[in-house]
Amino acid sequence: MYAVFILGTAGSGKSTLASRLVEWYVSKNAYAVTLNLDPGVIDLPYEPDVDVREYVSIDEIMSKYRLGPNGALILASDLIADRLDEIQRKVDELNPDYVIVDTPGQMELFAYRASGMFFAREFRCDAKASIFLFDPMLVNSPLNMLSIALLATSIRLRLGLAQVNVLSKIDLIKKDKLAELIECSADPARLEYALQREKDSELYLLGVSILKGLRRQGISMGLLAVSSLTYEGMVNLAGALARMLREGEDVENGDEMNYA
Amino acid sequence: MYAVFILGTAGSGKSTLASRLVEWYVSKNAYAVTLNLDPGVIDLPYEPDVDVREYVSIDEIMSKYRLGPNGALILASDLIADRLDEIQRKVDELNPDYVIVDTPGQMELFAYRASGMFFAREFRCDAKASIFLFDPMLVNSPLNMLSIALLATSIRLRLGLAQVNVLSKIDLIKKDKLAELIECSADPARLEYALQREKDSELYLLGVSILKGLRRQGISMGLLAVSSLTYEGMVNLAGALARMLREGEDVENGDEMNYA
Ligand SMILES: Nc1nc2c(ncn2[C@@H]2O[C@H](COP(=O)(O)OP(=O)(O)O)[C@@H](O)[C@H]2O)c(=O)[nH]1
Ligand SMILES: Nc1nc2c(ncn2[C@@H]2O[C@H](COP(=O)(O)OP(=O)(O)O)[C@@H](O)[C@H]2O)c(=O)[nH]1
Ligand SMILES: [Mg+2]
Ligand SMILES: [Mg+2]
Repeated sequence: MYAVFILGTAGSGKSTLASRLVEWYVSKNAYAVTLNLDPGVIDLPYEPDVDVREYVSIDEIMSKYRLGPNGALILASDLIADRLDEIQRKVDELNPDYVIVDTPGQMELFAYRASGMFFAREFRCDAKASIFLFDPMLVNSPLNMLSIALLATSIRLRLGLAQVNVLSKIDLIKKDKLAELIECSADPARLEYALQREKDSELYLLGVSILKGLRRQGISMGLLAVSSLTYEGMVNLAGALARMLREGEDVENGDEMNYA
Repeated sequence: MYAVFILGTAGSGKSTLASRLVEWYVSKNAYAVTLNLDPGVIDLPYEPDVDVREYVSIDEIMSKYRLGPNGALILASDLIADRLDEIQRKVDELNPDYVIVDTPGQMELFAYRASGMFFAREFRCDAKASIFLFDPMLVNSPLNMLSIALLATSIRLRLGLAQVNVLSKIDLIKKDKLAELIECSADPARLEYALQREKDSELYLLGVSILKGLRRQGISMGLLAVSSLTYEGMVNLAGALARMLREGEDVENGDEMNYA
């Protein structure tokens, strides 16, 4: 069993991509299921096979602990870790080839609380990978692109999951803009050049410093462009996931302590 | 008028520090007021002088738009930008020396939505600065510290605010552990050394690469240690803020286009 965690800021397209990815695997005759980890979601674009809302109820938490929506969402997310065993058992019973894990709408509730990290590290399967979605709305300037790239790296370090970076909703982006974004993402020098348009000199200098550092170390974000509407880029994404999962499997088998 | 935005992950101590900072300035005979920008908060450790909840009500949004707590919080945060003019007018009427801006419990709602960035950039005053809180709970390993440092930098680039990084709640940290954290934060080489304890070799290599890049560029996070309980570190924090605000004032006067 392979697990694919879908990560990204609120509204970046996580749940929609989760449903598309399952369809894609099913169309290739693999058995793929969805696991919803968002206790606060009302409408999902798919029928989850395993659903954290069966174990954790926001409404109950709001009344039981007399919390507002904010506090209830945080507490509910923290309770995910307590339910890991039950959720694991339910997924294991289904015994799928792939489990696509849809994470809470607000990534912070998963990535920057202890429970999300615990879940990502302790969930048992043959290999894990993650997709981090760059929302086109949030990467509308070179500085903002660098900002989201740092966020993606921050979450990569915290959760410890192999990660593919994806620019989502590309059907909403004009062709030439899209080409520029992809180019910038693959080449820090190109992004550094684009940064010259930035007016705030202090931010410009900080941005350039970070990019020079990344470039010297050969780190680039290398975005894959994907649309859940037109399915464009889905083949590339599945290919990238397959490579990461195969590598992950070798690592897990060779070194049992990896996620300990 | 100076504005100080308080940023950080959920529960990192933003609201508590906001109330302490106001007390501190008042004790120095400055006129300081609080501005609460969290539409979803129920209990605050202070009585806000200006409160976004007067303009945006989560309960109304939940019933009017038939949204769950998650969606309502997101929409409410998005509406903050629409209320900028009214909030600005109310703050201007008070005409304080300092306005301490407490941001939404979940930083994502402020930092990674269009409205927070708009508010931070468009709010008018003589100079702005921000405090980013590192929650001790989240920096319990060298990799996690690097992760939160990347998050802080990501937000720095997005909001465009001068930023001081603060390790919060230091009364909860053992003395020797605290010394190590502060040392690591000031010196990427020291953090790189601490990283050697990391078992996951891929994460170790990524972490070291990033640190080498930052070190070559002379970037360090340099945490200030502060407790809102014991007031330890408050003098240093106020000093750092004063320096940033004075510099910001020079910039604003010299170059009107800075925040345009
Ligand atoms: N045009 C377009 N819209 C998308 C795409 N993916 C998601 N969306 C829309 O973006 C919004 C947020 O998507 P959702 O999957 O709920 O985001 P999440 O909060 O990250 O789970 C919804 O209105 C989706 O219909 C896409 O590829 N193209
Ligand atoms: N011991 C200790 N607790 C703190 C400190 N600052 C905040 N807290 C506690 O941490 C929790 C979260 O604080 P809060 O200010 O609401 O965080 P926010 O979500 O970032 O606004 C509360 O229980 C606070 O009492 C501190 O300096 N020391
Ligand atoms: Mg979702
Ligand atoms: Mg708060």
